[in-house]
Amino acid sequence: MTTQQDVIELAQRAREASLGLGLATRAQKDAALLAMAEALLTRAEPILAANAEDVARAEAGGTPAGIVDRLRLTPERLEGMAQGLRDVAALPDPVGEVVRGSTLANGLELRQVRVPFGVVGMIYEARPNVTADAAGICLKSGNAVLLRGSSSAAASNAAIVGVLRDAAVAAGLAADVVQLVPADSHDTVKALMRARGHVDVLIPRGGAGLIRAVVEESTVPVIETGVGNCHVYVDAAADLDKALAIVVNAKTHRPSVCNAAESLLVHADVAGEFLPRVVTALQGAGVTLHGDEAFAAYDGVVAATEEDWDTEYLSLDLAARVVPDLDAALAHVRRHSSQHSETIVTEDQSVARRWVAAVDAAAVLVNASTRFTDGGEFGFGAEIGISTQKLHARGPMGLPEMTSTKYVVTGDGHVR
Amino acid sequence: MTTQQDVIELAQRAREASLGLGLATRAQKDAALLAMAEALLTRAEPILAANAEDVARAEAGGTPAGIVDRLRLTPERLEGMAQGLRDVAALPDPVGEVVRGSTLANGLELRQVRVPFGVVGMIYEARPNVTADAAGICLKSGNAVLLRGSSSAAASNAAIVGVLRDAAVAAGLAADVVQLVPADSHDTVKALMRARGHVDVLIPRGGAGLIRAVVEESTVPVIETGVGNCHVYVDAAADLDKALAIVVNAKTHRPSVCNAAESLLVHADVAGEFLPRVVTALQGAGVTLHGDEAFAAYDGVVAATEEDWDTEYLSLDLAARVVPDLDAALAHVRRHSSQHSETIVTEDQSVARRWVAAVDAAAVLVNASTRFTDGGEFGFGAEIGISTQKLHARGPMGLPEMTSTKYVVTGDGHVR
Repeated sequence: MTTQQDVIELAQRAREASLGLGLATRAQKDAALLAMAEALLTRAEPILAANAEDVARAEAGGTPAGIVDRLRLTPERLEGMAQGLRDVAALPDPVGEVVRGSTLANGLELRQVRVPFGVVGMIYEARPNVTADAAGICLKSGNAVLLRGSSSAAASNAAIVGVLRDAAVAAGLAADVVQLVPADSHDTVKALMRARGHVDVLIPRGGAGLIRAVVEESTVPVIETGVGNCHVYVDAAADLDKALAIVVNAKTHRPSVCNAAESLLVHADVAGEFLPRVVTALQGAGVTLHGDEAFAAYDGVVAATEEDWDTEYLSLDLAARVVPDLDAALAHVRRHSSQHSETIVTEDQSVARRWVAAVDAAAVLVNASTRFTDGGEFGFGAEIGISTQKLHARGPMGLPEMTSTKYVVTGDGHVR
Repeated sequence: MTTQQDVIELAQRAREASLGLGLATRAQKDAALLAMAEALLTRAEPILAANAEDVARAEAGGTPAGIVDRLRLTPERLEGMAQGLRDVAALPDPVGEVVRGSTLANGLELRQVRVPFGVVGMIYEARPNVTADAAGICLKSGNAVLLRGSSSAAASNAAIVGVLRDAAVAAGLAADVVQLVPADSHDTVKALMRARGHVDVLIPRGGAGLIRAVVEESTVPVIETGVGNCHVYVDAAADLDKALAIVVNAKTHRPSVCNAAESLLVHADVAGEFLPRVVTALQGAGVTLHGDEAFAAYDGVVAATEEDWDTEYLSLDLAARVVPDLDAALAHVRRHSSQHSETIVTEDQSVARRWVAAVDAAAVLVNASTRFTDGGEFGFGAEIGISTQKLHARGPMGLPEMTSTKYVVTGDGHVR
């Protein structure tokens, strides 16, 4: 069984490795990323064999088919992981970027420069592709990473990390820039959460329960990701064709992800015209509506309970309510939003302006599907997660969000 | 006695007030800041009377003279507080600043915009001027603030906050944009630390013990400030005149603050020439040296213990050691630094380059005193503290560091 002390030792090895990685040039890091991509493909066989073990164990244990599918690797999925690493190699290096700079009145030269955090801990659930994605993003941003995946993917993760470490060494970096934290006990998660000073930042990715536990128990600084109770508000001045397309897309394009819509609010003035259209379209797409009285008047709509307004379904379910005005919509969002992505559909410029100003969320959208809140869609090229906290990073996190900064102050004997 | 529930209620009132404050224009906020400055002076009498109570209580309780001095307000100090508020009014509004923006390939307009955190909690020690400073910076950055000062300054803080609240109301803002959290029990600090969801960020300012407790116990995100075990490293290639001036300035200019130097490292190659000069100069300025063997050979130098390398003296004491080379200096700093401010004195460009790259600290300085790590010196105009953590803000924090961001995404019916 892995002990707290074992995890601290892993973190110390990560720190040691991070010293060299933090000074590595972009060329060295890109070479390592390309070597990792290559190695995932040339050594696909043992990875797929290890994954087959995990899958067999999950199936024998009665794991639901959907989760087994997320766990399963195929040659195509391995190629996707390799391509992800190549994509990260192609992105600019955030380390060394000068964020701001000036020459002070006394001649001191001041520069604020991006630097790696040092040691990053990732805690995540089943999908083994996260292992390669996270390793790649951390490596490019100069951070040594401790990967604590799910026990259900233990064999897959061990195989992947073994391949990545070998490739790092072949490219001249320390193996310990990527390390797997054993998932043999929940205590290794606890150990990461208490490793303040050894781990610089912890990023949990997974269900709401995991994230809440990490946020509440960790003494290591945490970046909270992912819970999305996203709303679409159809205003009195909405173009109802656009509204219909946006609601259907936000709900049904990929219901299992955090930027999928979970609640629909409709201004009373357009309810008479819009409700029949939206109910028909959503039900036609297989969506179960959990509606207030106005919605529940339609066949097949389930009466909503208070709980529905706070539920992140991650399924083909949608809470729906008619609101008397913009203020009521804002109040509903303020009360129930998880501050991820909130969309208004309106042609009224001053209403849109109020929505943008008043809604407190990582992404506030006008006449666009909530599904656009995504590092890929935003053009970041890689995404480690979507932060729903206000400190450090908010919204999709790309490479720059995986760095800190330091001030470099250059003088010539300056004193005060 | 103030209960946990009382503190939550204060935080809820702060949240309510923050909604209006977050939407206030710069003109409204500046008017409130100027009204506050004015009110501190026109209502100086009751503030000074309340302060006299605190001072009398402290003196009666045998509080050391230095601390009583920090607690004491004078007409001049009140004028300084008023001027601080006017200075903040003169600074640009960080809220609404577009940090980055682009038009995506599909025509979506993406902007990342600065927004207030919402509710900020400040936990700080004796000095009542922090009350006005923090209130001003929070107000300008659109944040409602909960001020939890020291019980020793309770009467002063109550008087100051009363004046500030009245001025806020006179300027058309809610009184609850500034609130004092009673210091009648340590439980109110605990209550702030557990008010996750009600308080967006907590900033402790004070001694190492206070900061450590907040960092370890808080479930509210924390910005760690202020502990500074700062080093000056005099390299083999140093200009020893510059080195002498920098060491003396860094240690003696204001020994009680976090950017004062606490440790001196000298390259062995210049020790023979530099040690007699620096020992004489420092002792002449009243400094007690805690030295390794090389330093302890000089009269009046106390032999250093292992503990000295980790001590933030905040007094006219300095730990001092000779190191064989740059690597040893870097290793010493890596082991003992609190990652605040680290200075090298050298004329060797490649040595300076290595120092800047390898030292992990909020500020890394070349040929300049550690005393320059300061919001005022950096030209930020106002400073809420100096962050020594890597997440969100690192180094002196001005108005932009008191904000989060949100992405504003504008389309015209865009779906994926």
